[in-house]
Amino acid sequence: MEMLTKIAASLLDLRNKKPLVHHITNYVTVNDCANITLAIGASPVMADDIEEVEEMVSFASSLVLNIGTLNSRSIESMIVVGKKAKEKGIPIVLDPVGVGATSLRTTTAKRIIEEVCPAIIRGNMSEMKVLAGLDADIKGVDSIADEEDGEKVARQLTKKFGSVIAITGKQDIIAQGARICRIDNGHPLLSQVTGTGCMATSLIACFCGAAEDWFLGAAAGIMTMGLAGELAEQSLHAGEGIGTFRVRLFDAVGAMTPETIRKGGSITNG
Amino acid sequence: MEMLTKIAASLLDLRNKKPLVHHITNYVTVNDCANITLAIGASPVMADDIEEVEEMVSFASSLVLNIGTLNSRSIESMIVVGKKAKEKGIPIVLDPVGVGATSLRTTTAKRIIEEVCPAIIRGNMSEMKVLAGLDADIKGVDSIADEEDGEKVARQLTKKFGSVIAITGKQDIIAQGARICRIDNGHPLLSQVTGTGCMATSLIACFCGAAEDWFLGAAAGIMTMGLAGELAEQSLHAGEGIGTFRVRLFDAVGAMTPETIRKGGSITNG
Amino acid sequence: MEMLTKIAASLLDLRNKKPLVHHITNYVTVNDCANITLAIGASPVMADDIEEVEEMVSFASSLVLNIGTLNSRSIESMIVVGKKAKEKGIPIVLDPVGVGATSLRTTTAKRIIEEVCPAIIRGNMSEMKVLAGLDADIKGVDSIADEEDGEKVARQLTKKFGSVIAITGKQDIIAQGARICRIDNGHPLLSQVTGTGCMATSLIACFCGAAEDWFLGAAAGIMTMGLAGELAEQSLHAGEGIGTFRVRLFDAVGAMTPETIRKGGSITNG
Repeated sequence: MEMLTKIAASLLDLRNKKPLVHHITNYVTVNDCANITLAIGASPVMADDIEEVEEMVSFASSLVLNIGTLNSRSIESMIVVGKKAKEKGIPIVLDPVGVGATSLRTTTAKRIIEEVCPAIIRGNMSEMKVLAGLDADIKGVDSIADEEDGEKVARQLTKKFGSVIAITGKQDIIAQGARICRIDNGHPLLSQVTGTGCMATSLIACFCGAAEDWFLGAAAGIMTMGLAGELAEQSLHAGEGIGTFRVRLFDAVGAMTPETIRKGGSITNG
Repeated sequence: MEMLTKIAASLLDLRNKKPLVHHITNYVTVNDCANITLAIGASPVMADDIEEVEEMVSFASSLVLNIGTLNSRSIESMIVVGKKAKEKGIPIVLDPVGVGATSLRTTTAKRIIEEVCPAIIRGNMSEMKVLAGLDADIKGVDSIADEEDGEKVARQLTKKFGSVIAITGKQDIIAQGARICRIDNGHPLLSQVTGTGCMATSLIACFCGAAEDWFLGAAAGIMTMGLAGELAEQSLHAGEGIGTFRVRLFDAVGAMTPETIRKGGSITNG
Repeated sequence: MEMLTKIAASLLDLRNKKPLVHHITNYVTVNDCANITLAIGASPVMADDIEEVEEMVSFASSLVLNIGTLNSRSIESMIVVGKKAKEKGIPIVLDPVGVGATSLRTTTAKRIIEEVCPAIIRGNMSEMKVLAGLDADIKGVDSIADEEDGEKVARQLTKKFGSVIAITGKQDIIAQGARICRIDNGHPLLSQVTGTGCMATSLIACFCGAAEDWFLGAAAGIMTMGLAGELAEQSLHAGEGIGTFRVRLFDAVGAMTPETIRKGGSITNG
């Protein structure tokens, strides 16, 4: 079965299983992450206190660790909940937001990778270059790296960490061991809304909470976000702009069907 | 005067008095709670630092305590502010989000109830069963309990705690002492948007900040949220989905009138 | 060149320079602040941990300090990051949300002003009267002061603190030393959405991150928010209300052009 067909089928799995996705994420886009999780058909729960995270993740099907607004309290919770998830075989999706911008972010991302072995790491090219130990031009949390050497970075990172690596940008690259694919969905407007990267991470966690194949789950999450961006943009009427586009992203994810994916998904293997 | 007429009238009271509603709530849906408070005609204030909560609540007409994302810092603030509100006779609305999912939530909800005597407790059936000491199937923060024995649970809880009990679900049940009513407004889409439960709690606090009768205030808040769900869904055009629905909820609450309530409100006493 | 022409031109500067705006702000409206920053063409970054704020602000072109939801942790971060910004000549925009409502807010706002010398202070009339040491009627975070003596307060504050003073209300007043102007854009609906004050502050920081003249930057940010309110309201169709208005604010800011400013901007000098 070709990959696009598998992705389409995985959406039905997700909706049947309705996985619970535990998030420790930043306070900037947390509402968007919860709503996108609901829109695709999964169930979000946000809990970050060290006294409850182990209990909460025990019910969950997947775990998001997003370092967008770190603090000393949440870092320890991330480590503790990650270890519990690892122990129970629950897939962890790491979003190393802004890694490289500050040493706190770099140290924390590396510590999470080392101590909890994320199943999937999703970031933009600047972030991924930092994790790969390459020179990256970092300013804040937006990517300004060129995307040419994406495949090299992805292959290097999956080998280094053993995780599925998902690099999002103009073209998205997903790698796991020898497997690699590229996704060509998306729209430039997505980079003008905060949280579309975080939402892609949440969608990956939704798919991976219902699927055995995390490479497929990562591709499905990223393709869903990209397709939603295309559909949201196509829905805009005269006079509608970035605020309306953001609302329509949720409309599009909620209305996503296997048919939409089969017709609109653009994926290249290898 | 029948109850529906009283609820309709209480909306005018609310808009005349414009009560200040102090919230200590979760960081996931806090923006929605602030906007729904403004939309109905009240004034929100969010403050959770232990150094300022007692001063802040002294200006307020009601207080929301929502345990959606607890931490050790906010728990102590909730207790301190709750005691001050109780001392000043300001009604407290407790939203025990996810109680039963972790022992931190269960312990905290019970501690709040014991130490600050909420005027109103609003939750879904799973949460309310936990508070009643009954077996409840808990997974995350969404209700998966059947709703058959709602009246029994509501009567038991109002007797146990002396609070107005509001259980929201397909049919909502509100009880205070011997008084009981059922509300049949709402729409299934409400459960696909994060924070609609939290917003119902905020609306209850808005009405109770302007009304003497908290049973009525609880019914008014819940009916307003339910009617908004119906109106938002009816407003959807082809191609519009969950994102647009969420926006229209605020439109509908802002446009709510006594007439809308009298025409659309569905309430059964006893 | 007259001021309106300069404001129009400064929008092009902003979009060319795409300044990075570091925020330490409240968790209620932080998402709105990030999205409005993107909509106008700048780049937001939110980071509040004391371990990383100095590094992060070093990349930034301006800094927002918004005290909407203070806590002991974020207060220290604000002071530390403010000192670093001051040292590097990065303009700081202070939003003293709810100052006067609690002594924590008053003490913190005054401490920030004293220790980090904000380039711009933006608040409503109640807040500004508190900073000026005048009697102000405070209840929560909304302004209930009359606006008659705005010019007097603005002149007094700019003399006292040396900052650009921006008082927003029905008519906005901006003062710096002997310079003063009044802006007459805006719409009453803006006060029915949470965070429009915070967003105005973020927009000021966006303009000041790309401009040498902070008086001009303050006027540009406030005029942009006001014009967006007018355009958003004009775009409403029958049945659309406050929720849709809020979405259209982002549409309008994203679509803002020098032409829109020249045609719609209403500013009086002196």
